Amino acid sequence: MDTFTVKAFGAESNTADLAEMNIERREVTANDIEIEILYCGVCHSDLHTARNDWGGSKYPSVPGHEIIGKITKVGSEVSKFKVGDLAGVGCIVDSCGHCNSCKHDLEQYCENGFTGTYNGNDKHLGGHTFGGYSQKVVVDAGHVLKIPANLDLAAVAPLLCAGITTWSPLRHWNVGAGSKVAVVGLGGLGHMAIKLAKGLGAEVTLFSRTPGKTEDAKKLGADHVIISTDEEQMNSVKGKFDLIIDTVPYDHDVNPYITTLTINGTHVLVGFIGKMEDSLFTPPMIMGRKSVAGSVIGGIAETQEMLDFCGEHNIVSEIEIIKMQDINEAYERMLKSDVRYRFVIDMKSL
Amino acid sequence: MDTFTVKAFGAESNTADLAEMNIERREVTANDIEIEILYCGVCHSDLHTARNDWGGSKYPSVPGHEIIGKITKVGSEVSKFKVGDLAGVGCIVDSCGHCNSCKHDLEQYCENGFTGTYNGNDKHLGGHTFGGYSQKVVVDAGHVLKIPANLDLAAVAPLLCAGITTWSPLRHWNVGAGSKVAVVGLGGLGHMAIKLAKGLGAEVTLFSRTPGKTEDAKKLGADHVIISTDEEQMNSVKGKFDLIIDTVPYDHDVNPYITTLTINGTHVLVGFIGKMEDSLFTPPMIMGRKSVAGSVIGGIAETQEMLDFCGEHNIVSEIEIIKMQDINEAYERMLKSDVRYRFVIDMKSL
Ligand SMILES: [Zn+2]
Ligand SMILES: [Zn+2]
Ligand SMILES: [Zn+2]
Ligand SMILES: [Zn+2]
Repeated sequence: MDTFTVKAFGAESNTADLAEMNIERREVTANDIEIEILYCGVCHSDLHTARNDWGGSKYPSVPGHEIIGKITKVGSEVSKFKVGDLAGVGCIVDSCGHCNSCKHDLEQYCENGFTGTYNGNDKHLGGHTFGGYSQKVVVDAGHVLKIPANLDLAAVAPLLCAGITTWSPLRHWNVGAGSKVAVVGLGGLGHMAIKLAKGLGAEVTLFSRTPGKTEDAKKLGADHVIISTDEEQMNSVKGKFDLIIDTVPYDHDVNPYITTLTINGTHVLVGFIGKMEDSLFTPPMIMGRKSVAGSVIGGIAETQEMLDFCGEHNIVSEIEIIKMQDINEAYERMLKSDVRYRFVIDMKSL
Repeated sequence: MDTFTVKAFGAESNTADLAEMNIERREVTANDIEIEILYCGVCHSDLHTARNDWGGSKYPSVPGHEIIGKITKVGSEVSKFKVGDLAGVGCIVDSCGHCNSCKHDLEQYCENGFTGTYNGNDKHLGGHTFGGYSQKVVVDAGHVLKIPANLDLAAVAPLLCAGITTWSPLRHWNVGAGSKVAVVGLGGLGHMAIKLAKGLGAEVTLFSRTPGKTEDAKKLGADHVIISTDEEQMNSVKGKFDLIIDTVPYDHDVNPYITTLTINGTHVLVGFIGKMEDSLFTPPMIMGRKSVAGSVIGGIAETQEMLDFCGEHNIVSEIEIIKMQDINEAYERMLKSDVRYRFVIDMKSL
């Protein structure tokens, strides 16, 4: 298979800083699209993969799955896109297309495993996939998103992971006008959850451990902020929420939040991947038909729906633009939650 | 308020055996129904309440909330029932009627707390309510069920708690033809879950710790039995079930069952009330949008729906009839799971 070389930024090992390197991209096949990358958002998964925090990382590791760019080539069979169009690529660059999940536009739950934008198995070239910290990417047209032209392109990038990760549960659990939604954690995911839930017409509450985030949360659209360490405030929202989007990426006790769910309410985990230390206390779940669930990113059609919705409602991420060369410093700042609320790499810098 | 005296069987304290006693029942008010009790099923909650295992028990404690009887009096405003009709009373004898749950036929989740058939706050006489281990009961007509005439009356009694407790989640999570349902635990609840799920057209699997229950489970309608301690068998059902009804009344690890859920599947706890020892492992939940939920009994309309369904499909509980005087021995046998699958008291014996 014909390939071409592009500049990228990646890690040679789990202890190495990210640095410039060259990688190979395939020449477009009939159903492919080649995209010149303009912006790439920086997700916590990028950092965890580069450093092998979850195990299974392959090197060199080139992260990045919040990709915005301009189409530079299309394959002979591609009709939905043309050269010069804006395009987005999120977390999924391929999926089997024929399993029960794929048939229902749930590529994120592909029974045969979707191909991650990075660290996935590259079906075309062998080896593993390389993400958006690079000049160009070549992706199957069925996994490419259309980008609303009215939005700030750099600020759209984080919608492709942080946005869809919170949009999918909001839609799956039918959030709309009259819904009461709470968000746990105010980071990249949490700030998008507030904006999207608010956009859908919900009354939105942020759970925060400290009062310091109140002003910011309200600017982002939150109607209320509840300090989760304040027992009186927690009691004031007992039985209130239809859906809680829990974006906290580290271990924490979900039981106090469960008591704030209404009958049939759901606490959905989108941030913490692992074994929780605190176990479930079942009475409030049983006595109120409450659920604890998980959810990961979203399907391609659902991502497009979210992008279109954001175009109509003028919703984008709050971002800080960085140069590609600043990525290692940005990772350190992310670990200290020192970002409001998402770094986006201006790929011109590469 | 006028009252009359009836014989009952109850415990004077948490350490006392149940023994014969007299209790007072109110004379029917305009909306009440007086029922002569013919049969009363024996639920694990009866035992736990008599012995104060959950705390909060009031004495004397007269358990029993699987009540089948004949109507002996109706109040002046009652039009749906007449003297001589068969009638059933389950776990709920009153509810506020105006909260959001009650307005949606979810009296079991009444925001003001439903009145339990026993150990609840008696709104009429003060003190606490007395259950079905007695000659007669007087209940608000809105909380009385009609009993299909074609079924064995004694075997209908357990439908009023064990039946509705498993029916409600089957209906809430939309089980029907083509659904794949698993049941954990083969006791009073579990054997009803198998019968009702099968009646609804589902493919039904029993999870059991030992092979000894296979033959019984298949007789009850289970299509498959999976030995949950056999890793190979557990692997063979990975990602299979739309709904798991977990009837196990003691602490156990739910994580192995979660991996057997399909995308969007739910593991619903109906048996274990307390703090689980094992905590959740979130990856299978997140990577498959799987849920752990709780559910308790069911509403009055849903209980009637279940009884009508059982009438049409000839579904009743498997029972062993006992005399009222055998109740203490029956409790000991229940603690050893030595019952197939529900004791029912023939109230003639009182
Ligand atoms: Zn991401
Ligand atoms: Zn698939
Ligand atoms: Zn019961
Ligand atoms: Zn109510």
